[in-house]
Amino acid sequence: MEKVTPRTLSGFMELLPGEQVIFDAMSDRLRRAFSLYGYTPLDTPLIESSEVLLAKAGGETEKQVYRFMKGSSDLSLRFDLTVPLAKYVAANYASLSFPFRRYQIGKVYRGERAQRGRFREFYQADIDIIGDGGLDIINEAEIPSVIYRSFNALGLDGFVIRLNNRKILTGIFHLLGLTDCADEILRAVDKLDKIGADMVSRLLVGELGIQKSSASEIISLLTCAVRGEEPLGYLERYRGENDTLDRGIRELRAVMTHIADFGVPETHCKIDLTIARGLDYYTGTVYETILTDHPGVGSICSGGRYDDLAEYYTDRKMPGVGISIGLTRLFYILQEQGLLNDSVLTAPADVLIIPMTDDLSYAVTLATAMRNEGLRVQIHSESKKFKAKISYADKLGIPFAVFLGEDEINSGMITAKEMSSGQQTTASAGILTAGIAGKISALRSTAPIKGVTE
Amino acid sequence: MEKVTPRTLSGFMELLPGEQVIFDAMSDRLRRAFSLYGYTPLDTPLIESSEVLLAKAGGETEKQVYRFMKGSSDLSLRFDLTVPLAKYVAANYASLSFPFRRYQIGKVYRGERAQRGRFREFYQADIDIIGDGGLDIINEAEIPSVIYRSFNALGLDGFVIRLNNRKILTGIFHLLGLTDCADEILRAVDKLDKIGADMVSRLLVGELGIQKSSASEIISLLTCAVRGEEPLGYLERYRGENDTLDRGIRELRAVMTHIADFGVPETHCKIDLTIARGLDYYTGTVYETILTDHPGVGSICSGGRYDDLAEYYTDRKMPGVGISIGLTRLFYILQEQGLLNDSVLTAPADVLIIPMTDDLSYAVTLATAMRNEGLRVQIHSESKKFKAKISYADKLGIPFAVFLGEDEINSGMITAKEMSSGQQTTASAGILTAGIAGKISALRSTAPIKGVTE
Repeated sequence: MEKVTPRTLSGFMELLPGEQVIFDAMSDRLRRAFSLYGYTPLDTPLIESSEVLLAKAGGETEKQVYRFMKGSSDLSLRFDLTVPLAKYVAANYASLSFPFRRYQIGKVYRGERAQRGRFREFYQADIDIIGDGGLDIINEAEIPSVIYRSFNALGLDGFVIRLNNRKILTGIFHLLGLTDCADEILRAVDKLDKIGADMVSRLLVGELGIQKSSASEIISLLTCAVRGEEPLGYLERYRGENDTLDRGIRELRAVMTHIADFGVPETHCKIDLTIARGLDYYTGTVYETILTDHPGVGSICSGGRYDDLAEYYTDRKMPGVGISIGLTRLFYILQEQGLLNDSVLTAPADVLIIPMTDDLSYAVTLATAMRNEGLRVQIHSESKKFKAKISYADKLGIPFAVFLGEDEINSGMITAKEMSSGQQTTASAGILTAGIAGKISALRSTAPIKGVTE
Repeated sequence: MEKVTPRTLSGFMELLPGEQVIFDAMSDRLRRAFSLYGYTPLDTPLIESSEVLLAKAGGETEKQVYRFMKGSSDLSLRFDLTVPLAKYVAANYASLSFPFRRYQIGKVYRGERAQRGRFREFYQADIDIIGDGGLDIINEAEIPSVIYRSFNALGLDGFVIRLNNRKILTGIFHLLGLTDCADEILRAVDKLDKIGADMVSRLLVGELGIQKSSASEIISLLTCAVRGEEPLGYLERYRGENDTLDRGIRELRAVMTHIADFGVPETHCKIDLTIARGLDYYTGTVYETILTDHPGVGSICSGGRYDDLAEYYTDRKMPGVGISIGLTRLFYILQEQGLLNDSVLTAPADVLIIPMTDDLSYAVTLATAMRNEGLRVQIHSESKKFKAKISYADKLGIPFAVFLGEDEINSGMITAKEMSSGQQTTASAGILTAGIAGKISALRSTAPIKGVTE
């Protein structure tokens, strides 16, 4: 028979078993962290009608969409989790209670040009709080706490949540009479980190025709933190000059006030007035999260407050706030940087039972008893040499091997070998099981990521 | 702005939050059950190159596939989890250890005609054990135990695992000189449950030209269990007459011998010689699982032993055994039959904190402390009436509400209301948290399915 090469498409991450265990541990820990804040899990189809999914899309997004016909249906694969959420909330409005908090961890599809570290199929982990008509500022204050707890749960330490309020930027631009080119200015300001203040100033003056003094004032203000000034203090000089700006300052202050109560240390949350986020629909607090030791990889968790989630589907005003973690990309970066934790228990089993007799009854009974106590157990009864079975446990990192010969079966005293130390323990089945369970429970608590600052 | 109707495609299950929690609980419990047997989690892309995915497919399957072009790439959505597994094992052969045990719970796509209870996007939960060159019979004996433990973990009680061995059927047909039409006979036999022995006999004689005595012998044998005879005993009369038949009997006996050691009660596992499974690639033990009180819905978990998983990708012989649960369909059936457990805690939070003061600091601090103890907490600080906030907790089934007024904050004595009983408890934050955590822990252990026989 002619064979087909068993290849996986480029841009599609497919992990080896040990890697998959770490990926799943990350995903599980995020779920648990999100749950603590009352977010409910959601799962929406990967395929939607193109009419529904692309109601808003256009430009670059639309070009990247996996869109195709099936029969007479024009279908598309979701390219983010926000549009399906908007559809869901609009469609199920009457059945939901607001504020509606949901998390979703799922795959999305973008036909980007394939290159290292770029994925066409990737997991996003999103949380959003959707209000019905309004949404209290406290929700915007809580988000950094969710981010902090989530990354902490992964084992990550060296990260900073940077935040800003879009109203401050909008107000400043208004004050300087630059509202008409606010979007362009924001786009230029977004480049501050990459090209520096001088180049941004030149862009503002040269390309946008802004007066040099205004350009300089914008940059002064936005980079006050860089120069060691406390942004909220610096902003005081503008108070009372513009309503939007005033509201922005008030909101940012409210958010910062609660940060500590929410359990986020000051070291992990900073105001950065240069943060605008590319998307044009954020209207309040915006967030980015940077790996302290790897700022070059950009934000690993971003989002913000928006005013109108579902405007393409309903007249109801549904403001919200949310963030998104690009989980596949984050995993890729952590792996690249050597930050995945080698000591995570990635073995498929806690115990490998190696029967040395033809009658397997005792092995089966022991395996069943151990499983009843929550241990993950494999029986290795293939017709292979003893050495091959030990090397199977070794290669997979199975922590314990149990050899069952006539002596063990007759005496009821069983020997387990701890593979890492080579240490052997002999005891009755019950005592041995309890001892192994204790050690496994400790191994299981290992976080999937090494602390960056370790 | 003109609005687009926010609809979900027909044949695509999209659940409300409470339903989703139950679905996820089922999925989590399956994962845990599979893990106990040493299966490792796997995740493969939803999209594959059509050349790879359809290497084997043909006929009905191929027609149902979601297949499309993206640029110059001919792509298809996976229609099961077996072909991606075959690809994975062939592609990663050198990195894997055999026997390779994996589970995968993921969505698959089939463009079936839309009708009630038929899904175009649905979850399958698969486990497989893949051998390298060979695979011991003990693995086939273990599978019913995985099925039993899995459904038990879901809370399901009224089910029976029916099993057979394909070699027995093959051997019988050979013995009767009917090997050439074995496939057709198996297809007819598959209908025994539906159309009865008489009609099957007529099919065998009329359509396949089989002698009436042979037809009658086949049916006698296959339905011996129906007539109260013990199948393995009945089969004794054929021993020594055909090698394949002898092997089949030996294998079936070996499997049945270990069933009890593996912890499966006799009530939940029965030999049924009429089970053939439609697929033509099973070669040993085959499994079906029937809901005792709802046999009409058919098998909710099926599979068997096969000899050559990856023959389209590699010359290596990789026999295996596996089963598949149609999770979306199972959920649909259980919901239809009213078997989902109403008393599962589906609320997004364990505690709703309702602040009665403008200063939210205390509420935030309390929420943080409760979250640190593992409680899922929401703060409801929207500008709504008190009654609306209580009804929010009520509607979502949030078990506890905490009201925080000046008195509570000043005295440090907090009152929690258990929503189901209306009972109020006042205590310090620490003691109250511990008390609530205890009750929540009990609520969380509720199984997602009602015992069928309850």
